[in-house]
Amino acid sequence: MSKGEETRQRIIAAAAPLFNKQGYEGCVLKDIMAATGLEKGGIYRHFESKEEIAAEAFDYAWAIAMGLRREGLEEIPDHVDRIKQHIARFVQRTGIPGGCPLLNTGVDSDNGNPILRERVQKALRGWQKMLQATLRDGIEAGTVRADVDVEKVSRLIISGLEGGMLVSRIEKTDQALGDAMEQLDAYLETQVRAKRGKASRPRR
Amino acid sequence: MSKGEETRQRIIAAAAPLFNKQGYEGCVLKDIMAATGLEKGGIYRHFESKEEIAAEAFDYAWAIAMGLRREGLEEIPDHVDRIKQHIARFVQRTGIPGGCPLLNTGVDSDNGNPILRERVQKALRGWQKMLQATLRDGIEAGTVRADVDVEKVSRLIISGLEGGMLVSRIEKTDQALGDAMEQLDAYLETQVRAKRGKASRPRR
Repeated sequence: MSKGEETRQRIIAAAAPLFNKQGYEGCVLKDIMAATGLEKGGIYRHFESKEEIAAEAFDYAWAIAMGLRREGLEEIPDHVDRIKQHIARFVQRTGIPGGCPLLNTGVDSDNGNPILRERVQKALRGWQKMLQATLRDGIEAGTVRADVDVEKVSRLIISGLEGGMLVSRIEKTDQALGDAMEQLDAYLETQVRAKRGKASRPRR
Repeated sequence: MSKGEETRQRIIAAAAPLFNKQGYEGCVLKDIMAATGLEKGGIYRHFESKEEIAAEAFDYAWAIAMGLRREGLEEIPDHVDRIKQHIARFVQRTGIPGGCPLLNTGVDSDNGNPILRERVQKALRGWQKMLQATLRDGIEAGTVRADVDVEKVSRLIISGLEGGMLVSRIEKTDQALGDAMEQLDAYLETQVRAKRGKASRPRR
């Protein structure tokens, strides 16, 4: 990595928690200068605009959050258990100060911020694809019901978690997020998991 | 209403959609001046701070949104149907530009804005109390299962709707909100509605 690229990455890493906590408008250049020890010129040598810094900062924050939420999932053989573990990880921690970047930036980028909005849409699509791929693998392996609407299930998981996070954040307790997890787990067990005996389970 | 109070109300009504769309930091005094045709002094004669304007604007936006969502509910005799209608109203329209004020301000007020945060918490508590009162009335009338955890049900409804709204907003389609409604309706029918015959139903 070149010296310039290294500085760019350092700026992104420092800006990510600031944008995630303070929002696009609430995070000003002075905050990024204070966090990096760089002057305005030293920052804008590496970025064309504040919007570009915010977009890269979002991708960085999202990569950390999703990295934690996906960690070790592949080692869980059952696909429904894999999704349940992913949900538990979401509830446990975000890995970046300020909470889920999708919630923060999804609300924040709604008002005429096309670059940031595109990154948020891409992040959501990526999350949905990951859940859908796990469900499809599960259908193939016989762990997930064959008639499950994978798009709908993935959307309900994401909506349930993000809504629970919003309410938990307002209430300043984990109750809503815990309730959302319990509800999603029950949904996965009753509506998504293939019934034992009926499905063709892999033999060992 | 005094002339001063009238102007104050006019400022709040003009500021409400601006804060709801643009967020606390994104809505600047200039925007409120442009929307009201007033000078800075003409605005701050009626408010102590921008935070006070934002707090009153939130209450105003929330009253409009909840007014629409509660409209005519009392006329529906069955309590589960009443909640289903309330959910349908949430999905249909907010009544104020920028979408649900609880989602916007809940995320926005998270970073050191105590007056605004308190208003959001109060709004959430009010919404929960309204749902809980309807459920408790339903338990008494025999339309809602006696063993329902009213706090949990109210929290799941709010989380589900707000999460669906976030995903719908990012995706720019109504799909997630529609899925959330469908899921909540199924939940209400299977887990909350009292089973026919078992409950003591009012006789006519």
